[in-house]
Amino acid sequence: MDVDIGNALASVASPGVSRDSLERLDEQVAEAHERIESGRANEEHGYEALNLPDRTDPDEIRRAVEPVSDAEALITVGIGGSALGAATITNALDSDTETVYLDNVDPAWVAAELEELPLEETAINVVSRSGTTAETLANFLVVREVFEDAGVDWTERTIVTTGESGPLRDLSDRHDLPSLKVPDGVPGRFSALSAVGMVAAAVCGHDLEALLSGAAAEADTLSGSLFDCPAYAYGATSYALDARGAGMNAMVPYAESLETYSEWFAQLWAESLGKDDLGQTPLRALGVTDQHSQLQLYRAGPRDKVVTFVTPRETGDRTIPDTEVEDIAYLGDSTLGELLSAEFEATEASLAAAGRPNVRIELERIDEYELGGLLYGMEAACVLAGELYGVNTFEQPAVEWAKKATRGLLGGGEFEEADAVADKTELRVER
Amino acid sequence: MDVDIGNALASVASPGVSRDSLERLDEQVAEAHERIESGRANEEHGYEALNLPDRTDPDEIRRAVEPVSDAEALITVGIGGSALGAATITNALDSDTETVYLDNVDPAWVAAELEELPLEETAINVVSRSGTTAETLANFLVVREVFEDAGVDWTERTIVTTGESGPLRDLSDRHDLPSLKVPDGVPGRFSALSAVGMVAAAVCGHDLEALLSGAAAEADTLSGSLFDCPAYAYGATSYALDARGAGMNAMVPYAESLETYSEWFAQLWAESLGKDDLGQTPLRALGVTDQHSQLQLYRAGPRDKVVTFVTPRETGDRTIPDTEVEDIAYLGDSTLGELLSAEFEATEASLAAAGRPNVRIELERIDEYELGGLLYGMEAACVLAGELYGVNTFEQPAVEWAKKATRGLLGGGEFEEADAVADKTELRVER
Repeated sequence: MDVDIGNALASVASPGVSRDSLERLDEQVAEAHERIESGRANEEHGYEALNLPDRTDPDEIRRAVEPVSDAEALITVGIGGSALGAATITNALDSDTETVYLDNVDPAWVAAELEELPLEETAINVVSRSGTTAETLANFLVVREVFEDAGVDWTERTIVTTGESGPLRDLSDRHDLPSLKVPDGVPGRFSALSAVGMVAAAVCGHDLEALLSGAAAEADTLSGSLFDCPAYAYGATSYALDARGAGMNAMVPYAESLETYSEWFAQLWAESLGKDDLGQTPLRALGVTDQHSQLQLYRAGPRDKVVTFVTPRETGDRTIPDTEVEDIAYLGDSTLGELLSAEFEATEASLAAAGRPNVRIELERIDEYELGGLLYGMEAACVLAGELYGVNTFEQPAVEWAKKATRGLLGGGEFEEADAVADKTELRVER
Repeated sequence: MDVDIGNALASVASPGVSRDSLERLDEQVAEAHERIESGRANEEHGYEALNLPDRTDPDEIRRAVEPVSDAEALITVGIGGSALGAATITNALDSDTETVYLDNVDPAWVAAELEELPLEETAINVVSRSGTTAETLANFLVVREVFEDAGVDWTERTIVTTGESGPLRDLSDRHDLPSLKVPDGVPGRFSALSAVGMVAAAVCGHDLEALLSGAAAEADTLSGSLFDCPAYAYGATSYALDARGAGMNAMVPYAESLETYSEWFAQLWAESLGKDDLGQTPLRALGVTDQHSQLQLYRAGPRDKVVTFVTPRETGDRTIPDTEVEDIAYLGDSTLGELLSAEFEATEASLAAAGRPNVRIELERIDEYELGGLLYGMEAACVLAGELYGVNTFEQPAVEWAKKATRGLLGGGEFEEADAVADKTELRVER
C-alpha cells in the first residue's frame, strides 16, 4: 500500500500535524521500531503476529481443507477476530463458493442463514482459540444438529481451528476432524494471515501464497522512519492527529468489496488501542454511499476526526449508457468507475477545503497480493500506534467482565458479575 | 418504544446527567416541544416529517406497486435517505421477496448484484427527490440497459418516486410509469414513513397500516416533558451527554435484522446534527457481534461516548443442543435467545460497572408496528436534539461542495470546486 498524508498536515487541516512535529515524532517512531523488531526477534506475545508472513504454511492449510475443497458453500462459525479476518478476505475477492459467517446468536437470523444452504455441499469452519467462546460453541452445536437432522455427516465436512487444548480441541480429536492451530502469541484480531483467516480463503480457492507475499512485501518496508514506511506513516499520523483532537478515525474504502475490511480495521483499532482511557475510536463507513449519510458531519461537525480513504487504482468498469434526459446527459460520456473515482477525489478535496484532516491509502487493485499488504500494513500501523500511546496493544481485559456475567446468568458457575446485573439503576419512560 | 435512561444518570456514569440537570433541561424540552408543535401545525419544512403518520396514504402506494406486487425480487436504486429507510424496513422484516439496494456505484459490485436476479420477475424502485442524483441516475441507466439486453421490458416493472419536477419526473411521464411523490417538506433522512421508504415495504408485502399506526402511537406521546415521552427522553439525554463529553453515540441493536437500522440512525443523526462544529457522531454497531470487537474500547477507552442498546423483548428461539463436552455443558440447558439476552444484560451491566453511560430502548418485538414506532421515535428524538443544539436540523449544506466538484470533474459544467481537486497537498510514503 502507498500512503499520502499530505491532507493531514497543519498547513491544510485543523487538527493537523506540522512537518516539524512529524520530524520530532519520527524519533519516537525509530525507538518504537526497535521495540517492535526486538519483540518480533524474541517471538514475544503479539509482536509474533508481524512474523506471520514467514510462519504461515499454505500447504498445511490446503491439506486440512482438501476434503471440502469442492464445497459450494462455507459456514464459518466464529466471532470477532475468529471471523473478521476470514470475512475480510473472502468478501473482498470473487469466488464461486458462497460464504456465511455465523458471528451472532440471534436465533431467527441463524435459522435463516442455515435454511438456504445446500448442506451436502457445504463445509463448516469452526474457529475459537480458547475453544470455549459461548457464541461460537452454541452456534456450532446448532449447526451440527441441523446437519444431523438433514442426514449429512458433519464430521466429513468440518475443519477446526483452535488452540493446543480446550473443549474444541477435545471434540476435534474425538471425531478425528482435520484441525489447525491458532498460532501462539497472535491475538485474534491479528490472526487474519494465519489459519484463522486463511482456511476460509483456501476453501474459496484464493491464492494463499499471494496473500502472504503481499504481506511480506509490506513487512520489508518496516524501518526506523515513518517517511520510509507506509504502515508507520499511517500509524504515526493517526496517533499524532488523535493527540491533537481527532479522537475518531473514519475508515472509508471506495470499494464495496472492502466493506468488511472496515469492520476488521474497527476491531483491530478499538481492541488494541482502546484502554487506559486512551484510544482513537474507529468509524466504519463506505464510499460513495456514506457521502449521502456521514459527509455532512465529517465536513461541518466537530473537528474531532480524521478520515482515511482506501482506494484501488484499478477497478472493473461499466459504461454508463447514454440517456435522452438532458440534465444528466453528462453521465453518458462516463463509466461507473470514472464516477466512483470522481466522487472520491471530490470528497477528499471537499474535506481538505474545509480544513478537515484526511489520509489516502492507495492499492494497485483489490487482489490477494494487495489485500495481504493492506492487512499487514494496518496491523503494523496499529502496533506502532500502541507503542506511541504506551498501551498494552495485545490484551483486551475489558471484555472479560461481560463474559463472566453471561456465564453466570446462564448457570455456568458462580460469578459476582452476574449478581451486578440485577442491580441496574432504572429511569424508565414508557409509551 | 420504551426508554430507560437510568444508566445515563450521574449517579451511575461519567459523563452522566444528574436528576437535577434533567429537571432543568426539561424546561428547554417544553420550549422545544412548542416549537416542534408549531412547526408541525404550520407544515414547516422538516417538521412536516413528524406529520407523515397522518399524511401517507397506503392505498396510493399499493396501487402504484400493483403491477409488480408478485415480484420475486426488488431492486431499489437510491442512495442515502432514498435507500436507507426502505432498507431498514425490508431488512428488519421477513419476506419472500429478495431485495437489492443499489446505493453505490462500484462497477464490479453493481454487475455482481444484477447478475443473479431473475429479471423477468424483478421490480425496479427508483428514488431521487431531485431526480438528478448522479449515483442513482447512473445506476438506473445501467439497470435499464441490463433489462433491455435481457429482452425484459423495464417500463412494465419500474416504479418512480421523485419530486414534482426534474429529469426523473420527465422520464417517468414519458414512459408512463407508475410514480409517487416525495412529500414536500420532508428531507430524505426523515422520509422512511412516506412513499420513499414504503414502496419497497409494499412490494415485499409488509403491513403498511401497522407501520403507520406504530408511528402514530409514538407521535401521541410527544409532550412537553421528557419524563412523559420516550422519544424526547432519548433525544434530551443524548444531547445532555454530548454536552458533558459523550461526543459519540454507539447504536447497538441486539438483533441482526436491525443492522441496517443502525445505518439509518447514523444518517439521521449525522446529517441532522452535524453542523456548525456541533453534533454527536453516530457509531454503527451490532450485538452480540461487536462485544468481540468494540466493547473493549467502549468500556476502557476515553469517556467520550454513550452506548444505546435496542432490544426486542420477544425473539424467535432455538434450543442449544446438549453436548458431550463438559466445559460448555451449561449451554445445553439454554436457548440461543437466552444466550442473546444474557449477553445483552451482561454487556449493559459491564458498561455501567465501569461508569460508562448507556441507554436502553425496548421494543415488544420486531414487527411493522414496533418498527414504525422506533423510526418515528428516533426522528422525533433527533428533531428535539436539533432544537436543543440550536442547529438547522433539516439542511445538509456541507454535501453540496463535493457534488459540484464531482459534476465538474465529469464534464457536467464549470465548477471552481473541480479545480480545487487538482491542488491537493501531497506527502507520499510509498512501498
